[in-house]
Amino acid sequence: MSLDTAMSKPHEQLAATLSDDLTRVNAMIRARMASEHAPRIPEVTAHLIEAGGKRLRPMLTLASARMCGYDGPYHIHLAATVEFIHTATLLHDDVVDDSRQRRGRPTANLLWDNSSSVLVGDYLFARSFQLMVETGSLRVLDILANAAATIAEGEVLQLTAARDIATTEDIYLRVVRGKTAALFAAATRVGGVIAGVDEQVEQALFDYGDALGIAFQIVDDLLDYGGTDAIGKNIGDDFREGKLTLPVIRAIAAADDEERAFWVRTIGKGRVEEGDLDHALALMSRHGALASARATALDWSERAKAALGHCTEGPLRSMLHDLADYVVARVA
Amino acid sequence: MSLDTAMSKPHEQLAATLSDDLTRVNAMIRARMASEHAPRIPEVTAHLIEAGGKRLRPMLTLASARMCGYDGPYHIHLAATVEFIHTATLLHDDVVDDSRQRRGRPTANLLWDNSSSVLVGDYLFARSFQLMVETGSLRVLDILANAAATIAEGEVLQLTAARDIATTEDIYLRVVRGKTAALFAAATRVGGVIAGVDEQVEQALFDYGDALGIAFQIVDDLLDYGGTDAIGKNIGDDFREGKLTLPVIRAIAAADDEERAFWVRTIGKGRVEEGDLDHALALMSRHGALASARATALDWSERAKAALGHCTEGPLRSMLHDLADYVVARVA
Repeated sequence: MSLDTAMSKPHEQLAATLSDDLTRVNAMIRARMASEHAPRIPEVTAHLIEAGGKRLRPMLTLASARMCGYDGPYHIHLAATVEFIHTATLLHDDVVDDSRQRRGRPTANLLWDNSSSVLVGDYLFARSFQLMVETGSLRVLDILANAAATIAEGEVLQLTAARDIATTEDIYLRVVRGKTAALFAAATRVGGVIAGVDEQVEQALFDYGDALGIAFQIVDDLLDYGGTDAIGKNIGDDFREGKLTLPVIRAIAAADDEERAFWVRTIGKGRVEEGDLDHALALMSRHGALASARATALDWSERAKAALGHCTEGPLRSMLHDLADYVVARVA
Repeated sequence: MSLDTAMSKPHEQLAATLSDDLTRVNAMIRARMASEHAPRIPEVTAHLIEAGGKRLRPMLTLASARMCGYDGPYHIHLAATVEFIHTATLLHDDVVDDSRQRRGRPTANLLWDNSSSVLVGDYLFARSFQLMVETGSLRVLDILANAAATIAEGEVLQLTAARDIATTEDIYLRVVRGKTAALFAAATRVGGVIAGVDEQVEQALFDYGDALGIAFQIVDDLLDYGGTDAIGKNIGDDFREGKLTLPVIRAIAAADDEERAFWVRTIGKGRVEEGDLDHALALMSRHGALASARATALDWSERAKAALGHCTEGPLRSMLHDLADYVVARVA
């Protein structure tokens, strides 16, 4: 049974609970992605931002701020900030990966060109810092500037680790923290920071976002080898691109000589033939690599939930708790 | 007579006067471009940053701060910030323009790949905001975040205006402010801001940088059609890429039907044949477009010098004054 039908989706519960805030975030996003003189900017941004993303990251900021009792105006700016940073990285990632599809639609680099994706991403990144400045909080700027550096570093690391079958789980974790968890953790943390929480709660919010992001990305990497919720995903992309994700790293660690030669040829050298993806799946199954990666995702999900123990009880905390279950339920 | 030999170069005078500060800026750049886990980042950055750029933008910040009497530590951070933003935009520009050469060396996108240039640019951009946060000045962050947005907007505008022969001088000026003057103006302005200058001086510093940047870029665009200081420039690049720069815009404005057909075919449609560049030069000469663009650059240089009237007299002000002459002397 799919868990999608077994329980109401926590991100939909969050969206319902935060609907007034989300309306304001969407209005701010639309206002700030405008450009009087360069209409290409809102065109490209709208294509991506209005393609039905779940607004997961801005919701994390809103939920965190509200859970911590914030009642000022700036969680809206920060939620829009986080969505802009996310959108900018998606635009750049699609150039880096030469992607043709995102969220079930053609990518901006395909519809327009790589140049537009690079420059509009830069624009959104600059806009995100303008929004942060408006909050008047140097702490928030510090946290999000650090997150932005970690994101870019993780992406470069992923680029240089591609096709390197010596990639370790440590490197994988660093890549995952960069490409996903850094923004999740900053999103939840800044919500607490503008609410004025103490150090322990701030750390708990960081830990929650960090663990949630890692769980989320491991699941995403598992779904690239098939799964129940693969809408908009192209199965086998990571395999063809030679990305060293957790199940592959574990299958390689357990490989005999013949299997190792297979990984060297496919992941290492990119010489992928008909039937190789199925064979890769069979090898991962044989060594329990998919199941063990799933267990690792579940473990991070548990850590995310445990971190919430330091936060104020209430419906928002329950939804964040359920969200940590939900992101791994996609492969449970 | 080349003005290079007629007077000591003002940027060299500035470099000598500010040499201690510049040493600290270079040390900070080296420290902050490091990445423990992704060695690709310092490799790509070093290739560009150590290729013998003149450090013009960081020197503007240092000179401005010192001229305004600043004696704290943060002009170093801001000078490094400005150089990081500049380097990030160069990395991204070379991807956008598919450039093969920069500062007389192969570009990073050629030596590594577009992906590295995009992501390392993102990293440097994030690093630049970390440096700004360290200054503790929200005003500085505001000014530089705005500049970053203007830069990206100008680049997008340049992209969408390429091959559009209806491009006006207004649009050209907006592109130039984006691609060059915004960072010059922010560089000089933040130097004053950390020194605590009053509003009038802050505006004067902005006006100086803005006018200097516009003069600098008009000259750069003129040099693309030949000049005395074309080292590292590939004559005719803008023509082949269909960029609507000032001399072209003016030649098109003065064109008869036959000339117009030539511009439509070459700039508009990119169908460039042997001899077309020479013919373009002849048309620009016939209508005095090169001379009038040069006169416009000189006018902006005069405006830059006039703005300095509000700043404190002394050797640094004199050097900034001479610098405004120097940037146009390349085509005088």
